[in-house]
Amino acid sequence: MNYLESLSKDHPNFTKDIEPSGFSQTLQEAMTSIPNEHSSNSIEQSSELSVIRPEPVFSVLNTPDPPSPWIELASSMKEKVLTRGKQSSSLLHFTLSGLQGLFPVLSWGRNYDLKSFRSDIMAGLTLASLGIPQSIGYANLAKLEPQYGLYTNLVPPLIYAVMGSSKEIAIGPVAVISLLVSSMCQKIVDPSVDPTGYKKIVFTVTFFTGIFQASFGFLRLGFLVDFLSHAAIVGFMGGAAIVIGLQQLKGLLGLTHFTNKTDLVSVIKAVWLGLHQSWHPDNFFLGCSFLIFILVTRFLGRRNLKLFWLPAIAPLLSVILSTVLVFLTRADKHGLKIIKEVKSGLNPSSVKLLQFTGPYVGESAKIGVICAVIALTEAVAVGRSFASVRGYQLDGNKEMVSMGFMNIIGSLSSCYVATGSFSRTAVNFIAGCKSPVSNIIMAITVFLTLEFLTRLLYYTPLAILASIILSALPGLIDVREACSIWKVDKMDFLACMGAFIGVLFGSVEIGLMVALTISFARILLSSIRPRIETLGRIQGTDIFCSKRQHPVVSLEPGLMIVHIGTSFLCFMNANFTKERILTYVMEDEELQEENNEGKILYMVIDMSNVMNIDSSGIAAVEEMHSKLESFGIQMAIVNPGWQVIYKMKLARLVERIGVSWIFLNVGEAVEACLSYKEDNICA
Amino acid sequence: MNYLESLSKDHPNFTKDIEPSGFSQTLQEAMTSIPNEHSSNSIEQSSELSVIRPEPVFSVLNTPDPPSPWIELASSMKEKVLTRGKQSSSLLHFTLSGLQGLFPVLSWGRNYDLKSFRSDIMAGLTLASLGIPQSIGYANLAKLEPQYGLYTNLVPPLIYAVMGSSKEIAIGPVAVISLLVSSMCQKIVDPSVDPTGYKKIVFTVTFFTGIFQASFGFLRLGFLVDFLSHAAIVGFMGGAAIVIGLQQLKGLLGLTHFTNKTDLVSVIKAVWLGLHQSWHPDNFFLGCSFLIFILVTRFLGRRNLKLFWLPAIAPLLSVILSTVLVFLTRADKHGLKIIKEVKSGLNPSSVKLLQFTGPYVGESAKIGVICAVIALTEAVAVGRSFASVRGYQLDGNKEMVSMGFMNIIGSLSSCYVATGSFSRTAVNFIAGCKSPVSNIIMAITVFLTLEFLTRLLYYTPLAILASIILSALPGLIDVREACSIWKVDKMDFLACMGAFIGVLFGSVEIGLMVALTISFARILLSSIRPRIETLGRIQGTDIFCSKRQHPVVSLEPGLMIVHIGTSFLCFMNANFTKERILTYVMEDEELQEENNEGKILYMVIDMSNVMNIDSSGIAAVEEMHSKLESFGIQMAIVNPGWQVIYKMKLARLVERIGVSWIFLNVGEAVEACLSYKEDNICA
Repeated sequence: MNYLESLSKDHPNFTKDIEPSGFSQTLQEAMTSIPNEHSSNSIEQSSELSVIRPEPVFSVLNTPDPPSPWIELASSMKEKVLTRGKQSSSLLHFTLSGLQGLFPVLSWGRNYDLKSFRSDIMAGLTLASLGIPQSIGYANLAKLEPQYGLYTNLVPPLIYAVMGSSKEIAIGPVAVISLLVSSMCQKIVDPSVDPTGYKKIVFTVTFFTGIFQASFGFLRLGFLVDFLSHAAIVGFMGGAAIVIGLQQLKGLLGLTHFTNKTDLVSVIKAVWLGLHQSWHPDNFFLGCSFLIFILVTRFLGRRNLKLFWLPAIAPLLSVILSTVLVFLTRADKHGLKIIKEVKSGLNPSSVKLLQFTGPYVGESAKIGVICAVIALTEAVAVGRSFASVRGYQLDGNKEMVSMGFMNIIGSLSSCYVATGSFSRTAVNFIAGCKSPVSNIIMAITVFLTLEFLTRLLYYTPLAILASIILSALPGLIDVREACSIWKVDKMDFLACMGAFIGVLFGSVEIGLMVALTISFARILLSSIRPRIETLGRIQGTDIFCSKRQHPVVSLEPGLMIVHIGTSFLCFMNANFTKERILTYVMEDEELQEENNEGKILYMVIDMSNVMNIDSSGIAAVEEMHSKLESFGIQMAIVNPGWQVIYKMKLARLVERIGVSWIFLNVGEAVEACLSYKEDNICA
Repeated sequence: MNYLESLSKDHPNFTKDIEPSGFSQTLQEAMTSIPNEHSSNSIEQSSELSVIRPEPVFSVLNTPDPPSPWIELASSMKEKVLTRGKQSSSLLHFTLSGLQGLFPVLSWGRNYDLKSFRSDIMAGLTLASLGIPQSIGYANLAKLEPQYGLYTNLVPPLIYAVMGSSKEIAIGPVAVISLLVSSMCQKIVDPSVDPTGYKKIVFTVTFFTGIFQASFGFLRLGFLVDFLSHAAIVGFMGGAAIVIGLQQLKGLLGLTHFTNKTDLVSVIKAVWLGLHQSWHPDNFFLGCSFLIFILVTRFLGRRNLKLFWLPAIAPLLSVILSTVLVFLTRADKHGLKIIKEVKSGLNPSSVKLLQFTGPYVGESAKIGVICAVIALTEAVAVGRSFASVRGYQLDGNKEMVSMGFMNIIGSLSSCYVATGSFSRTAVNFIAGCKSPVSNIIMAITVFLTLEFLTRLLYYTPLAILASIILSALPGLIDVREACSIWKVDKMDFLACMGAFIGVLFGSVEIGLMVALTISFARILLSSIRPRIETLGRIQGTDIFCSKRQHPVVSLEPGLMIVHIGTSFLCFMNANFTKERILTYVMEDEELQEENNEGKILYMVIDMSNVMNIDSSGIAAVEEMHSKLESFGIQMAIVNPGWQVIYKMKLARLVERIGVSWIFLNVGEAVEACLSYKEDNICA
């Protein structure tokens, strides 16, 4: 292009024979004469125009320049800081309000009363009775010893209670994250070969997860949570639930050998082999009967809300009953698998287990990013939906910071990645929690368990843990939502199914990659091919609508109105837009040759949808203008976005198109074109 | 969410105490009563309303369903086929017009006359005199023997002449593609160690390039060319030109040892080492003097267009002069590097060199994709800009098919990747070519050279080839365009600089990756944070504008108008949009408490920019509606896109919002809200 330009610049006569020179000259004369004419004569000629056209103060071109991206970023930052310390008169006050922002406990703690405390104690105990067996099961899923589940149910809830702003969320290990951690970390170090090495990886991953979460929050990258679409999450969760369920077959059937892979085919193969080698029906019958017990209590709890505590304590009850049963019958001697030793005592420090050198740091950081995003997605979804029921808003960025600190401190005290659990949050809510104190009560209960009751867990059968996890899975599989996604949006359903099938037959990462790719591809596709539609007038009004959508609208003779349906006219769609509009013009000319109708003289381009433009877009508009000019068609632009007008001014495109050919709305542009046309015909 | 839903479904009294039940009931009553009232009373009450509201035929909701994506895809395919065979009455005619589509030579060949032929002979000979030395130089850059450059300047132009639709484009090897091929292929096989293995890779890459190009064309993936933004191409080309120039230092300085890497640091290090070991000033002086000669002729050619042939034949002249000089002085015995043997004769077959098994197939295909996209980007840019000067349109997809076939057949006859060259196309154009016949003339000249003149190239110094390539580079570095990009769009400039620095200090692939990443990130960023702005009325009109852009507009009391500035309300921005709108409402309530003004009763959401929506978007609109309802605010939706209305109907969202709360334009919605408000106040 630049070569051509330099050619035509150096040799002014170079492009002369290319343009229909006679015509373009007359057109240029017409163009320069029209604005003056317009400002003086035409308003007097057509009184209608002067009524409808607004005062020149309101012209698109008279607006101030839009704030530059840097200024806008700075002002949004400032706004955030200022709202926090809005009424700060002194430095002390400012510091206090800053501390209150970081530790919400300082604000709600002052109004906390005995009545709320009573509710929180009830909720906390209910939570603990559900959380203790669940966390032992999830530790098993994460391929860690049982006490690590309890550790993770102790420190992170305490940190969240002082830093978090959600009142209902129940913090601890959850199923999907446990699966994520084990399926990705065991690719680096096999836990059955080198348990300490595996733990090192897990805690390092937890540390990185915390670091990423906190920095997402500090850098206000809250939108990262939105990168996974709702549909993708539905598919991913469904697939993960089935994968987790399949992993429980090991415990439920009492298999000794099992696969490290998580995909359907490998697991079914492993189960098939296991059933042919050695399995103990006792495990299966015990697990199944308690699974049925838990499901029945849940059914009863749903039928009668007063019995809400029944499904909540059923897992604990199952653990106690089955442990007593095994202790009495000594069934572990006949092949029933039991937990055996659970180390007692408070969380040991794991600072020395963190690895920041060596070959696995990069890999750990990568797993950390994935865990950070998935954990935040789950926690924010849980937190938001319960906050919206209670009628308050959660600040996503603040939540990220507290989740981050909770996992960083967790990684130093032998905890793996914790987040908000959906099922336990619901129990906490129904049990009537009033504040994060319920999390503290639960943590105290877990602490007491760790100190005094671990020896009682010796005889707890592994099959019971499997059945507790299995009973929590149906809530993750949301067939009804998948159906409604299919009904509303087929492409969303594709993302949903992609994630589901990817997790089920590939691995967790493959499922995530598929979901992300489909979701992003969709956004790009919608940018690549914007809708370019011709508009027509609804008779008797000043409303202009798409001819294709409303076939009854009437087109104006001698002018064409085209609407550009993208918010960002950029390199990906500028060329397409230009060519589509020029094709419309040429198709129309062909049609007119056949019908002997009037030629198009004005092309009104409705750019009210275009909020931003890049240099390719500017070039496309410029080319369109000169091309239309060479056809003898005047281009009018309607209501481009603020940034668009600003950049068109910078590129001197406004001058080339002509200030009087840029309008505030379609009606005004059509009016002006029609009146010019009449003037021309009269003259 | 589903858990909550099931809870509230199973226990109808579950959410009772959460909502301000008394209020929502009255609101619901009000909502069900309003529509009826509206259709009977309100029109009579306010005569203004009945004038402005269009006939119910024109309601947004009465339109037919939009065509499904599959139907739209099918109809666009059908359209393409039908336009090609529009007037086909018989099968024969249909086949003929299909053949004409594939081989445009069949259409223009019939009207071809002697006068055009004379022009084409002149243009073809000029082209050959520039192309022959250039292609030998580019073969050198691609680390192939000189004859391969000539081969590539023979077969692909012939194929393009019968299949291509551009009249001006000059086909052959080009600088950037030669650099791409050598820099990527030598990572697989080192050409100095295993020349045959390297050739195998190069031809396989060429074959894949052709396959990808042809399939892009057949699958109508023409938009792939738009994936590289204009800004990114400017930066990439500039960086590539400097890298190519640095590579020429080897020939210009007559160095024996040189680096295989292309980045600035490695090359400067290699040159430094070379200068300290062994270099021959003869090479440098010879190369520089002829470089100056070529540049002076170009300057003269630009000053006087009649001398256009001078820069075109200067390279050939340099080759002849320098060759004669070396032959006479036998300077090659004193360290001057010469080409030595150039194999004579027509292209040999290279079918047996193609490798579709073995370890390098995947790698070759990857390089093929990159070459295909870059080659097409360059060719389409060249073709389009000259076609637009001549006033005809190029069909990008058709061009891709012909480029693909040209490279497939090229790869079978010892050619590497060919594409349209910018500098030679310009020469072809200025020399007055009328049709692709000039490419045929050039190919014949190259054929004669290969058959009879290769022996004369024995003494051609390598430094001359370097200076010919160096002289072609300034056209690739477009500082003026980079400046204008900086002026108009800072983010575009970032992409430009990213590509430039990536190519210069990293590698060609890194530069491309950086450019692609920045460009895509920008599109995603513009989707993540749409502009949500409050609108106000321009006094005395029915035009509503952004309050921020036009501070003079007046807001209507008791209602808020918000505009959503994205064309795709999807998972990435739905949550943000919802929360931003709710924040506006809450900020406004705070403001009103201070000022004791009237509360907002109506929220008009202008969705005229929203052309598409996904399930997350639907959910966000739904949540927004119920949230606003709980605040006692009625939501009205204005002019959502066709797809949006369709999906809102499918999700039963239209019923929930209320059919009478969806309007065609903002004016109408405001009118309706104001009249309801008056009615309520009167009642």
